[in-house]
Amino acid sequence: MRIVPVLSVLGFIICAVGAAMLAALAFALYFDEPDVQAILISALISIAVGAFLMLFMRRLEGDELRAREGFAIVTFGWIVAPLFGSLPFLLSGAIPNFTDAYFESVSGFTTTGASILSDIESLSQGLLFWRAMTQWLGGMGIVVLSLAILPLLGVGGMQLFKAEFAGPTKDKLTPRIAETAMILWSVYVLMTAVETGLLMAGGMSFFDAICHSFATIATGGFSTKNASIAHFNSGYIDVVVTAFMFIAATNFPLHYAALSGKFRYFRDNEFQFFSISAVVATALVVPFLLSDYDLLTSIRHAAFNVVSVMSSTGFASADFALWAPMAQIVLLLLMFPAACAGSTGGGMKNVRVLLLLKTAMNELKHLIHPQAVIPVRYNGRMVEQDILFNIAGFIILYLVTFATATIAVTATGLDLVTSLSAVVAAMSNIGPGLGMVGPMANYGGLPDLVKWILGACMVIGRLEIFTVFVLFSRVFWRS
Amino acid sequence: MRIVPVLSVLGFIICAVGAAMLAALAFALYFDEPDVQAILISALISIAVGAFLMLFMRRLEGDELRAREGFAIVTFGWIVAPLFGSLPFLLSGAIPNFTDAYFESVSGFTTTGASILSDIESLSQGLLFWRAMTQWLGGMGIVVLSLAILPLLGVGGMQLFKAEFAGPTKDKLTPRIAETAMILWSVYVLMTAVETGLLMAGGMSFFDAICHSFATIATGGFSTKNASIAHFNSGYIDVVVTAFMFIAATNFPLHYAALSGKFRYFRDNEFQFFSISAVVATALVVPFLLSDYDLLTSIRHAAFNVVSVMSSTGFASADFALWAPMAQIVLLLLMFPAACAGSTGGGMKNVRVLLLLKTAMNELKHLIHPQAVIPVRYNGRMVEQDILFNIAGFIILYLVTFATATIAVTATGLDLVTSLSAVVAAMSNIGPGLGMVGPMANYGGLPDLVKWILGACMVIGRLEIFTVFVLFSRVFWRS
Repeated sequence: MRIVPVLSVLGFIICAVGAAMLAALAFALYFDEPDVQAILISALISIAVGAFLMLFMRRLEGDELRAREGFAIVTFGWIVAPLFGSLPFLLSGAIPNFTDAYFESVSGFTTTGASILSDIESLSQGLLFWRAMTQWLGGMGIVVLSLAILPLLGVGGMQLFKAEFAGPTKDKLTPRIAETAMILWSVYVLMTAVETGLLMAGGMSFFDAICHSFATIATGGFSTKNASIAHFNSGYIDVVVTAFMFIAATNFPLHYAALSGKFRYFRDNEFQFFSISAVVATALVVPFLLSDYDLLTSIRHAAFNVVSVMSSTGFASADFALWAPMAQIVLLLLMFPAACAGSTGGGMKNVRVLLLLKTAMNELKHLIHPQAVIPVRYNGRMVEQDILFNIAGFIILYLVTFATATIAVTATGLDLVTSLSAVVAAMSNIGPGLGMVGPMANYGGLPDLVKWILGACMVIGRLEIFTVFVLFSRVFWRS
Repeated sequence: MRIVPVLSVLGFIICAVGAAMLAALAFALYFDEPDVQAILISALISIAVGAFLMLFMRRLEGDELRAREGFAIVTFGWIVAPLFGSLPFLLSGAIPNFTDAYFESVSGFTTTGASILSDIESLSQGLLFWRAMTQWLGGMGIVVLSLAILPLLGVGGMQLFKAEFAGPTKDKLTPRIAETAMILWSVYVLMTAVETGLLMAGGMSFFDAICHSFATIATGGFSTKNASIAHFNSGYIDVVVTAFMFIAATNFPLHYAALSGKFRYFRDNEFQFFSISAVVATALVVPFLLSDYDLLTSIRHAAFNVVSVMSSTGFASADFALWAPMAQIVLLLLMFPAACAGSTGGGMKNVRVLLLLKTAMNELKHLIHPQAVIPVRYNGRMVEQDILFNIAGFIILYLVTFATATIAVTATGLDLVTSLSAVVAAMSNIGPGLGMVGPMANYGGLPDLVKWILGACMVIGRLEIFTVFVLFSRVFWRS
C-alpha cells in the first residue's frame, strides 16, 4: 500500500467536511448565535489541514488507486471525517469532552444517530444543523461507497449488481465512480428536497424540516428535539417520515430506475422481502399497543417504529423501550438485517439474509434429491457461488463482532438488554436500543470505554465489516 | 414415503423405551416404592404398543429404508419416545399434568435437562432413575444418529467424516449402522461406568452416581438434587463432572481412536477450537467471581459452568443467573455453538462455526488477491463447497428458528432475557437459561404454550434442524 495517494484523498475528504461546515456557519450567522466563531475556526482548521494534505501529497498524473488503497481510504476516511467533524462541538464548548464529541460526530457520519446529549434543544441552531449535516454527508458517502466503490473492491451487498452499476474493471477504481456518484446524488438531493417540503407543509419550520430530512434520507435519526419525532405529535408528520425512512432504506438504483420511468420495485426480490417483513413486523406489534391507543394510532406507532428500526434511522414516535416484551424483541431482531443493500441504511442487509434463506431452502430440496444441482436464484438470475461464500463469511463476522463487542460492553457492568441492544444498534447504525439506551434515553451516561467500543462498532458495521477487517489481515500489509 | 416401514421402526423404538423402563422398575422394587405399579403399567403399555406395530407393520425381507423414511423415523421417533416416556410420570401422579410430563420427558430424550419440577427430591428413586434414563437413551440415540444416520441422510456436522465413518452408500440406510452403533455404544457405556466409579469414590451413593453419570455422558443435566451439583459442594465431584462433561461433548470417533491407541485429539481442528474457547471463556468469567470466592474456587466454578453450558449439559455448581452481566453473556453466547459434532452435545456445533470463520478469513484474503483460489481446509483436507453451503443454510435456519421461537415466547409476556435464553437453552439442548429459567429456578411456572414451543425447539435443535424441517417441505411429500 502506498501512503501518499491515501493521504491525498483523505485531504480531499477533510476539506469537504470543512467546506460543509460553512453551511452550518450560515445558519449560525442568520440566527446571530455566539457559536459563529467556533464553527468558523473549525471550518478553517479542516480546510487548511485538508488542503495541506492535498497539496503536498499529490498523486501523479494517470496514477490509478488500487484496491488496498481503496480499503485504507474508506476506513480512515470514516475515522478522520468525524474527527474534524467533532471540532464545532468541542470548540463551542457544547460538548466539552473529546470522547463525547467524537461519539456524537462518528454517530452522525456513520448515519447511526445515537446521541450522548441529554438536552438536545439546548444546542444552538448552527450546531444542530451541523449535527444533522454530519449524517447527510455520511449518507452521501455511503451511497457512493455501497454502489460504486465497495462492489469494485469485492465487498458489500451490492456485489450482485456489480456488472450493472459499477463497470467491469477489476483492481482499479475508475472515473466511472464520479459519473455514478452524480446520478445517485441527484436522487439523494431530490428526496431530501421533497421531504423538506412535505414536512413544512405539516407545520414544521424550514430549519426543523431540513434537519429532519437530512436525518431521514441519510437514515441517521438525529432529531432537533429531545423527544425525537414524538415532539411534533402529528399523524401527518409520522406518516411522511415513515414513508421517507422506508424509501431511504430501499435500494437506490430502484429509485433511479423509477425516475427514468422503469418501475421495478415489486419485481425486486429484496424489496419484496423488505416490504413483507415490515408489514408482518407491524402486524405483530400492533396488538400490544391497543391497550394504550386506538387501532389507527396503534398502527401508526407500530409502523413508524418498525420502519424506523428496519431502515436503521432510529427516530421514535413513542418510547418503544417501554413496550411489551414481544414488541421489543421484534424491534431488536429487526436491527440485525435492517435495511436493503445500496441504500443509506445499515445492518446485515435484507439481500444477504434472503440469499442465505434461499440457500437453506435449496439444502432442504437437496436432501431429498441429492443428485440434483439446484442454483440459488435472485431476481431471476443465478447467483454465483462466490457471492454466497462472501455472504456466509459476512454473517459470521457480523455475529462474532457482535458477540465480542457485547462481552466487552458488559465487562463494565451494564445489563444484558442494554448491552446487546446498544451493540447491535451501533453495528447496524440504528441509534437507539433498549434498556438504558432506549429512544427517550441517551448514551451520555455510559462509561467512556463503552462509547469507544460502540463508536468502533458503528464504523465496522457501516463499512460492511470486511472493509475494516481487511486492514488487520497480514495479507494486506504484505507487499 | 412409505408409512409401513416407518411405523415398524417406530414400534421398535417404543418397545425399547418400554424395556428400558424395566430398569427403573428394578430400582422402584429395590427401594420398595409405591410407584412400582405405575412404572410396570407404563412399561407394559409401551411394549405392547411397540410390539403391535412391529408385528403388523412388517417390512419385507431385503427391503431397504430410503432417505425420506429415515427423516420421518428420526423426527417421529423423537416425538413418540418422549410420549411413552412420560407415562411413568403421569400414571404415578408425580407430574399429573400432561404438558408438564411431556415437557420433562422430551427434555430428557433430547438430552436437554430443562425441568418443570420445583422439588426434584420429592420424586421416588424409581422415577428419578427413569428421568435420568430418558437422557441416557436419548444420548445413545444421538450418538448413532449423528455419527451413522444423519451423515447418510446428508445432514449434520459429521458429514465431513462421512467417508471415514458411515460408508459410501448414498440413498439407503445400510446395515453398517449396526456395526458403527456397537462400537460407539461401547465407548458410551465405558465412559458412563468410569464416571460412576469416580463419583462413588467421591462419596456419592451408587444411585446418585449412576443418575449423574447418565446425565453427564448424555450431556443431559437432570440432577437428582434440587440444587444440582451444587448440592454436593465438593471440589472433587466438580472436577470429575467438569472433565466428563468435556469428554462427552467431544467428538466420539476421537475417543474411539484413543481407545485404539491413536491419540488424535490435539490434531483435530474442532477439538482445538473447543478447548481454546473453553479456556478463554473460563478466563473471562473468573475475574467476576473473585469477589465471592478465592482464586481456586473461582476457577473451579467458572470452568464447571462454562463447560456445563458448552457441553450442553446444564448442570450448575453455582447460580450463574446471579453472576455479573459479563459472566452471564459469555455463558449465553456459548449456548449457540455449544458442543462438538459427533458427541452427545447439542448446539450449532463448533465445527460449523469454525468452518464459517475459515470461510470468512478466506474472503478477506480473496479481497486482496481476487484471482487466487483459496480452499477452506479442515484437519489438513480441503472442504467441499457443498458442505459449506449446507453449514451456511444450517446457521441461518438455526437463527431464524431462534428468532421466531423467541418472538412467540415473548408474546406470553415473558421478559427478554428469560425468553432469549430459554429458547437457545432449548434449541441447543442445554437446559437452564438466565432470568426466570436460571439453574436454580425451573420451567414449571411458564405458560403451557411456552412449554410446547420450547419442547418443539428441543426436538428441532436436537435433530440438527434440517431433519425436522425437511418434513415440512413440499418436495418431501411429492412422490
